[in-house]
Amino acid sequence: MKQLTELQLLINDAVGKLSYPAYPADLYEPISYILSIGGKRMRPALLLLACDLFGGDVDKAIEPALAIEVFHNFTLMHDDIMDKAPLRRGKATVHEKWNANVAILSGDAMMVEANRLMMKVDDSILRNVLDVFNDTATGVCEGQQIDMSFEQRNNVSIEEYINMIRLKTAVLLGGTLKIGSIIGGAALTDADLIDSFGVNLGIAFQLQDDILDVYGDPEKFGKQVGGDIISNKKTFLLIRALELAKDGQAQTLNQWLCAAEFDTAEKVKAITNIYNELDIRQHAEKAMQTYADKAFVALDAINLPEDHKQYLRDFADGLLVREN
Amino acid sequence: MKQLTELQLLINDAVGKLSYPAYPADLYEPISYILSIGGKRMRPALLLLACDLFGGDVDKAIEPALAIEVFHNFTLMHDDIMDKAPLRRGKATVHEKWNANVAILSGDAMMVEANRLMMKVDDSILRNVLDVFNDTATGVCEGQQIDMSFEQRNNVSIEEYINMIRLKTAVLLGGTLKIGSIIGGAALTDADLIDSFGVNLGIAFQLQDDILDVYGDPEKFGKQVGGDIISNKKTFLLIRALELAKDGQAQTLNQWLCAAEFDTAEKVKAITNIYNELDIRQHAEKAMQTYADKAFVALDAINLPEDHKQYLRDFADGLLVREN
Repeated sequence: MKQLTELQLLINDAVGKLSYPAYPADLYEPISYILSIGGKRMRPALLLLACDLFGGDVDKAIEPALAIEVFHNFTLMHDDIMDKAPLRRGKATVHEKWNANVAILSGDAMMVEANRLMMKVDDSILRNVLDVFNDTATGVCEGQQIDMSFEQRNNVSIEEYINMIRLKTAVLLGGTLKIGSIIGGAALTDADLIDSFGVNLGIAFQLQDDILDVYGDPEKFGKQVGGDIISNKKTFLLIRALELAKDGQAQTLNQWLCAAEFDTAEKVKAITNIYNELDIRQHAEKAMQTYADKAFVALDAINLPEDHKQYLRDFADGLLVREN
Repeated sequence: MKQLTELQLLINDAVGKLSYPAYPADLYEPISYILSIGGKRMRPALLLLACDLFGGDVDKAIEPALAIEVFHNFTLMHDDIMDKAPLRRGKATVHEKWNANVAILSGDAMMVEANRLMMKVDDSILRNVLDVFNDTATGVCEGQQIDMSFEQRNNVSIEEYINMIRLKTAVLLGGTLKIGSIIGGAALTDADLIDSFGVNLGIAFQLQDDILDVYGDPEKFGKQVGGDIISNKKTFLLIRALELAKDGQAQTLNQWLCAAEFDTAEKVKAITNIYNELDIRQHAEKAMQTYADKAFVALDAINLPEDHKQYLRDFADGLLVREN
């Protein structure tokens, strides 16, 4: 059984070897650029891991794993335009370094490239793999659109929010594991179970991210603590607080949400206070645990040797206790 | 043998039946919108025609034909953002009617939808069809990028220009016919020949478009006559004129190209005069004929009954004598 860290190195190596035509430069250079600025290569490594756990040959899964990495970076390239984000992993985003047109078109070309890489599987599983990939891609587009629409709305429900994070981030984790398992030779039921494991783990992970934004250790949390609060981001915590807030709390919350100018530290402190009064952290942790439990139920049911499942269990545990 | 007009109706009908989820509305409504504002459905109808000419069942080619139509409209949706175009077929473009973010993301979803539709072929030809489709899609992205880069350049050669129109518009016609022929059961050599017919016909057609912009009958030409001249578009005519212009002509040309404010009718007249002095129309018609000839040579070599080839010949002739 291969280790995830080993597989991440394998992917890093394979990403480094991806090469694109020199012409037209403004189409292909941004692709090499965004792929070079890194990330942990967690998704493609997990695709390899799933393949390996089911007894497949990891070498035959490398190109589909790269497809996931290229696809993920395509969505980042387009999301960054939509979010007007100046930085990605500490480096200038493609639409900043070049321009929005270049980022639109290079992203489109990456999507095609992802399809091409995903096709590097045996004929016997080609349709199955591409079906999963297309469903995943549609989900990610839907999730991003729903997320954008939330910015204009003040009545987002917890159910809608969970559905959004499921689509925007969790289905890609599920789809990645499913494709890896199919390449590894998993039966359809097991492929569906590892998909469910991934989707539910992804939701739990995103809920944890919401919690860490407010309650994370500033030393360990990679982003600015309270960033979601400052930007009025509709996270699980804010949505739940808006649901539970009584008169005075509701008024204070809304004042902060509507304030055009404010001291950021003061806003973070005030809203965190309301969260504390309403036990929002406990609500969020309970929801996170619910999805973690669902992930583990799916995992338990997979027809794999116990040590293989334990590896995934340990991985999930590690993911869900992080403070960064 | 089916008629192209009949196949266009079939496609129109099938496009009308395409339906998308209601939620998220801003992802799917723009897709229905851009597909509803029409176009002649020439490409998907030609895919069906190619299938039919090789003895295939047209019903089995409808979804792949729709894939081509959805893909083409995806590229239009993204191109319109890049070109800041307010109108498409006389209606507001998606980024105008909604906004650029919606147009980026709906376009992305259309690309996935196109892949999904293109997969509706028999397993035995799935990989082959998708390979052609991916190559076509990459070509279209490259062509659009090269076209955009021409705006910043003053030394574009005829060779580069032909390569750009080949990628931006002609490979889609070639790929469309090739996919239709594969679904129809064509041998690989014949699929390649009909591809070559389509690509060369597409180049000839685009060169004709360049000519009609200047020399077309204003009554029949759908667009503003001289539109390319007014916007300094680097067409075959302008590139050739810049190559051939002698001192005084070169100076006059450059003055018009650099003029920030001008009377449009005066500019069109002045540049047309230079084109006339340099026999640019004849140069362009000669180039157009060269590519039409290449198209017909490829067509002649296809292993199909003579009356089938005659139908394609008549279609090509009709396309290349249009004045609109």
